[in-house]
Amino acid sequence: MVTRAGIVVTGTEVLTGRVSDRNGPWLAEQLRLLGVDVGHVVVVGDRPADLSAALAFLAGTGVAVVITSGGLGPTADDLTAEVVGEFQGRPSSVDPALEQRIAAVVEGLMARRGWRTDAEATAAGVRKQARVPEGATVLEPVGTAPGLVVPPAEGRSGPVVLVLPGPPAELQGMWPAAVAADATRGALAGRAELRQEVVRLWGTLEAQLAVTLREHEHDLAGLEITTCLREGELEIVTRFPPDAQPAYDRLSAVLAADYADTLFSTGPTLDDLVAGAFAERGLTVATAESCTGGLLAARLTERPGSSAWVLGGVTAYANSAKEQLLDVPADVLAEHGAVSPEVAIALADGARARFGADVGVGITGIAGPGGGTEDKPVGTVHLCVAGPGRRESRALVLPGSRSTVRERSVTRAMHLLRALLLGGPPA
Amino acid sequence: MVTRAGIVVTGTEVLTGRVSDRNGPWLAEQLRLLGVDVGHVVVVGDRPADLSAALAFLAGTGVAVVITSGGLGPTADDLTAEVVGEFQGRPSSVDPALEQRIAAVVEGLMARRGWRTDAEATAAGVRKQARVPEGATVLEPVGTAPGLVVPPAEGRSGPVVLVLPGPPAELQGMWPAAVAADATRGALAGRAELRQEVVRLWGTLEAQLAVTLREHEHDLAGLEITTCLREGELEIVTRFPPDAQPAYDRLSAVLAADYADTLFSTGPTLDDLVAGAFAERGLTVATAESCTGGLLAARLTERPGSSAWVLGGVTAYANSAKEQLLDVPADVLAEHGAVSPEVAIALADGARARFGADVGVGITGIAGPGGGTEDKPVGTVHLCVAGPGRRESRALVLPGSRSTVRERSVTRAMHLLRALLLGGPPA
Repeated sequence: MVTRAGIVVTGTEVLTGRVSDRNGPWLAEQLRLLGVDVGHVVVVGDRPADLSAALAFLAGTGVAVVITSGGLGPTADDLTAEVVGEFQGRPSSVDPALEQRIAAVVEGLMARRGWRTDAEATAAGVRKQARVPEGATVLEPVGTAPGLVVPPAEGRSGPVVLVLPGPPAELQGMWPAAVAADATRGALAGRAELRQEVVRLWGTLEAQLAVTLREHEHDLAGLEITTCLREGELEIVTRFPPDAQPAYDRLSAVLAADYADTLFSTGPTLDDLVAGAFAERGLTVATAESCTGGLLAARLTERPGSSAWVLGGVTAYANSAKEQLLDVPADVLAEHGAVSPEVAIALADGARARFGADVGVGITGIAGPGGGTEDKPVGTVHLCVAGPGRRESRALVLPGSRSTVRERSVTRAMHLLRALLLGGPPA
Repeated sequence: MVTRAGIVVTGTEVLTGRVSDRNGPWLAEQLRLLGVDVGHVVVVGDRPADLSAALAFLAGTGVAVVITSGGLGPTADDLTAEVVGEFQGRPSSVDPALEQRIAAVVEGLMARRGWRTDAEATAAGVRKQARVPEGATVLEPVGTAPGLVVPPAEGRSGPVVLVLPGPPAELQGMWPAAVAADATRGALAGRAELRQEVVRLWGTLEAQLAVTLREHEHDLAGLEITTCLREGELEIVTRFPPDAQPAYDRLSAVLAADYADTLFSTGPTLDDLVAGAFAERGLTVATAESCTGGLLAARLTERPGSSAWVLGGVTAYANSAKEQLLDVPADVLAEHGAVSPEVAIALADGARARFGADVGVGITGIAGPGGGTEDKPVGTVHLCVAGPGRRESRALVLPGSRSTVRERSVTRAMHLLRALLLGGPPA
């Protein structure tokens, strides 16, 4: 039997897009690792009726647990704990010991900042945060807000609700305790294993894959296959119970045979592959970026330990910077323009030489929205990866907005690095 | 009367967090500009029953329109159009003219890539994409997938459903036509104005603001106030109908009086302010980053037209790069270590000198998870902004993960730039 969960992300700032949610995806992945399948993530503003409706909806889908994030702060718009308590039939009241613990944290925070404190009003905020639904398990605060595990009231059926704070660091810090709570363990008992496999293709259209999957559909029963095209990468994710492993093996063989020229990974992400290749081969890299403005360097250094193989990079927006920091010859700039194959090569060579790196990457282009010409429209990007004894260049005209052009250029550069280091499908 | 809408984002890749949703926030903002209030965004995987349940839930909340994104591709897991048709009581059938138009697009795509085409299987994918619920309005494809506007069947009540594709560029391209469709205009007729104002504080805790709001709550009727703390910025967003404008003016006056020392914006974002200040004052900037690895440069250059004031930057991970590209003296590195106030100053000065910029920014720190020591734990970050005739430095110990430390360091550097250029609350 597949055990299912639902997630409620609260916060008007998330609903209106001012903040992008990081908790829903993180929770979905944690649940998957526990063998729990997520059916819906509901994003809801700071309104009690909307939150209640979301809880009722998820309970109605038959999930074993609902996880909420956010809405546990001291302000009046933070109302998750109270609403969940009502929903589960467990009225809330102040937990005096918890109130004291929160008060100590808040007073420390306010004192360190030297704020005047209106003792009465501060206490009201603390008291609000210390309200606990009857019979709920309190999860100790990581910041100031406690979490809760709230089972349905005695005699009622329905999901156990895990109430977690909104700041990702607090939510993640509290997760182990939330999972370990008795009520959570009871709700998740007896779940079955759900396997997941990923295959990544570079340069195959979704329409083409659809043809393959239709041709073989009778061999693939029991597999839930989802595909997603993103920045040129076609990601095929398959989830299945253990007894469908033979069907997955058939799918895996079909993909390996039909897409030998585009299949670049049966698991690791592009970034995993590039980082692994640099680390294993003991090579170093340096970047020289114009239109991507540091995004490639930021992506390469996102990974812990990347200082072992990233020496650095130059963002050279101004031509003078290209000349002085990366030794791009002034006459090459004058003759071909800053956005040209010749300058991409000079950037890659310059980065390699200036940083003393094994591999240099050069990117120059017009991300837009302004700056395009008839010859070099917005989206024109030249890439070059220069490695020991080998250079690879690409001339692209990428569609989309400024941020899309920048992101796709970086992804394409990552594929050039992958192909240079590991072979496989050409970038 | 407030007109409300619901949003359904489909796709297992979004539900499981492999892709972060950009459509929900974009749609919520477009709807807000139209005066339509969004109550819920539901993220759902590629499963018909889950999608139907989400539609039923949103219809039950009394919304005037539901907007779906995704699930319109040629693969079998893309099922939104069919499910919406069934939900609205409008069975689908193939639109032959539409089928021909899609086929022409797909054949062009496949031919350009030189793929073998199994004509029969390809046609099956196209035919699927050309299925249209009876009585629905077709929105012409921006990519290969058409969108739909699907009203409830004759004699039924319920929301109009706008069915849009998942790729953000396609969805955004199709949005004007979706809004202009007769059924959409009918559903949204008669909506009332909803105002929104934003105030941003730097260095005020949510607990402190809660005190203020409680003290004044009787003066603030009719305002929906939501607060969000993010990377040290406390954002206060207030939504209200026009007749609550006097209440908002009272709130605005209270915030201006009580938070004069932390209020840095009554609207524009931090990035807006910094970009505007550079542009208006005709100043230029260059960056020298260690632990943030290019993130500050990438953030500064995210904005169209930033090439007018960003000259560039250096990501100097290796000490040799700090010395050779930014003139950080070897003896300063040896004496104080790469993560020190002295090196942050040398980085800022080096960036300023090397790029010939008016303002230089230096960042050096330990983002973790490795590399910390007792003296300099993970999260230790030194910042320096050097401008004409003035330098500001900060020594921080930031909590959180590697990515959190990196992002907060960049935000803090942006605040240093803001304070240097515009004054206001100290960073």
